[in-house]
Amino acid sequence: MSRDLPSLRSRFPAAYVLATRWADNDVYGHINNAAYYGLIDTAVNRFMIARAGIDIHAGPLIALVVETGCRYHSALEFPQDIEVALRVERIGRTSVTWNAGLFAAPAAPDDPAAADAHFIHVLVDRNTRRPAPWPDAMRDALAEMIG
Amino acid sequence: MSRDLPSLRSRFPAAYVLATRWADNDVYGHINNAAYYGLIDTAVNRFMIARAGIDIHAGPLIALVVETGCRYHSALEFPQDIEVALRVERIGRTSVTWNAGLFAAPAAPDDPAAADAHFIHVLVDRNTRRPAPWPDAMRDALAEMIG
Amino acid sequence: MSRDLPSLRSRFPAAYVLATRWADNDVYGHINNAAYYGLIDTAVNRFMIARAGIDIHAGPLIALVVETGCRYHSALEFPQDIEVALRVERIGRTSVTWNAGLFAAPAAPDDPAAADAHFIHVLVDRNTRRPAPWPDAMRDALAEMIG
Amino acid sequence: MSRDLPSLRSRFPAAYVLATRWADNDVYGHINNAAYYGLIDTAVNRFMIARAGIDIHAGPLIALVVETGCRYHSALEFPQDIEVALRVERIGRTSVTWNAGLFAAPAAPDDPAAADAHFIHVLVDRNTRRPAPWPDAMRDALAEMIG
Repeated sequence: MSRDLPSLRSRFPAAYVLATRWADNDVYGHINNAAYYGLIDTAVNRFMIARAGIDIHAGPLIALVVETGCRYHSALEFPQDIEVALRVERIGRTSVTWNAGLFAAPAAPDDPAAADAHFIHVLVDRNTRRPAPWPDAMRDALAEMIG
Repeated sequence: MSRDLPSLRSRFPAAYVLATRWADNDVYGHINNAAYYGLIDTAVNRFMIARAGIDIHAGPLIALVVETGCRYHSALEFPQDIEVALRVERIGRTSVTWNAGLFAAPAAPDDPAAADAHFIHVLVDRNTRRPAPWPDAMRDALAEMIG
Repeated sequence: MSRDLPSLRSRFPAAYVLATRWADNDVYGHINNAAYYGLIDTAVNRFMIARAGIDIHAGPLIALVVETGCRYHSALEFPQDIEVALRVERIGRTSVTWNAGLFAAPAAPDDPAAADAHFIHVLVDRNTRRPAPWPDAMRDALAEMIG
Repeated sequence: MSRDLPSLRSRFPAAYVLATRWADNDVYGHINNAAYYGLIDTAVNRFMIARAGIDIHAGPLIALVVETGCRYHSALEFPQDIEVALRVERIGRTSVTWNAGLFAAPAAPDDPAAADAHFIHVLVDRNTRRPAPWPDAMRDALAEMIG
């Protein structure tokens, strides 16, 4: 990721539009920095459930977060909706690196991100919590998000 | 409110559809009880901003919560969307009592609420935090939500 | 609970001192109403784990919330610590009604609560989610909190 | 920061012990990744208020977050307390880079961090939101945290 320039919305193949909440705004009147991660977590997990077949309640494989990061370019605030745009940067044997851009919704293709984040998931066995290689169907679903 | 029977969706004149978030689910796999209040707060404040003219950043009048309550009839869970349905039960000189029903989205008119809540706002002066009577325009906006 | 008068700290046999967090404060500079429930949930569950033998990860019996409510008497705010004071109001065959008072920490015995809440837990079987009678040891632990 | 090795507790000159909350645990039974940032935000802001003279409600200078990141080495979980240990890595003209280590409390000096994070604050004018140089007293307070 470039350190300085916000990503454009067109850089991401898909997005979830998520409602902001009253409590997301902090004393300074903007979405709190930690709330961004909650939104990204939500978008990535919605993808993993709907498209990659993760069963968060009972499936044998679950995805755990090993690294996250975010650069905040400009403020967002309740009550505006946010587009959490996603792309897969890299698929490893047992991991995936997501890039997420957060945009005031609705975003035009050349809108710059209010924040650029990354989010690394490792697939693990639910019981042993040891890394597990991606099953083909999961890897294929992730591969569609490489942008 | 009846103590025992969940309200039907048709009991409420309007609703906001809000996305659930990964972190709303607790260890037991359901939306945490406290998260319901965050959703209701969000819906009521969206109404107050969009329809009743509350300016949360700089307006002279703000609405503070003096009482809340919720009965949980059945579970909701991420990633399903939730309809937070609202109606005004009572408008006082400086206060308003909201009833909120939470439903798995999309809800049919005769769907029973997963939770029934109430939420009492008092209008106050931003600086003194003392109760202030509703301006006519705010009262009119609230009156449209009496169901 | 009296509708009008805040409970005194001396009304409760025990309390947990919990740190507030930056994000608890909302745009108006006070702890958000929904955050109170998160604090109460925390205190009650800490009691249930430490004193009543609930195993939240694997135990056969878990406690689910069926009703909550809170009246807000005065504001609390980050970064002050909060005493979440607890007492048991009633133990049913499968349920328990908690009263919680929230106080700026450290609280003197005759300090009035900033908020008075109630919280009803029902004990259920983890798998069937059907109500289960309190085992004697759990009931005894709860009985010590009747104030 | 080394990419691979967790920091030791002795690497940080000071720490805040913060209570975890019921809702911090997610479906997988561990503190959610986003909750870590809420804890770090809390610790850094407690320092800024108590030691660096920031007035979050009315002061002319406030600190906004421009970048955060976290690597998760091992799990933490409610109800354990967490030590959020802090050190200042770098003080710029208008910014400060914090390193934070999260440890199960109480931590021994050679305990490895469960998570290593960084957190970059920029000091800005409350009204214009433009960067402002550190007043001497603030810079001195931050300098004491260089580890």
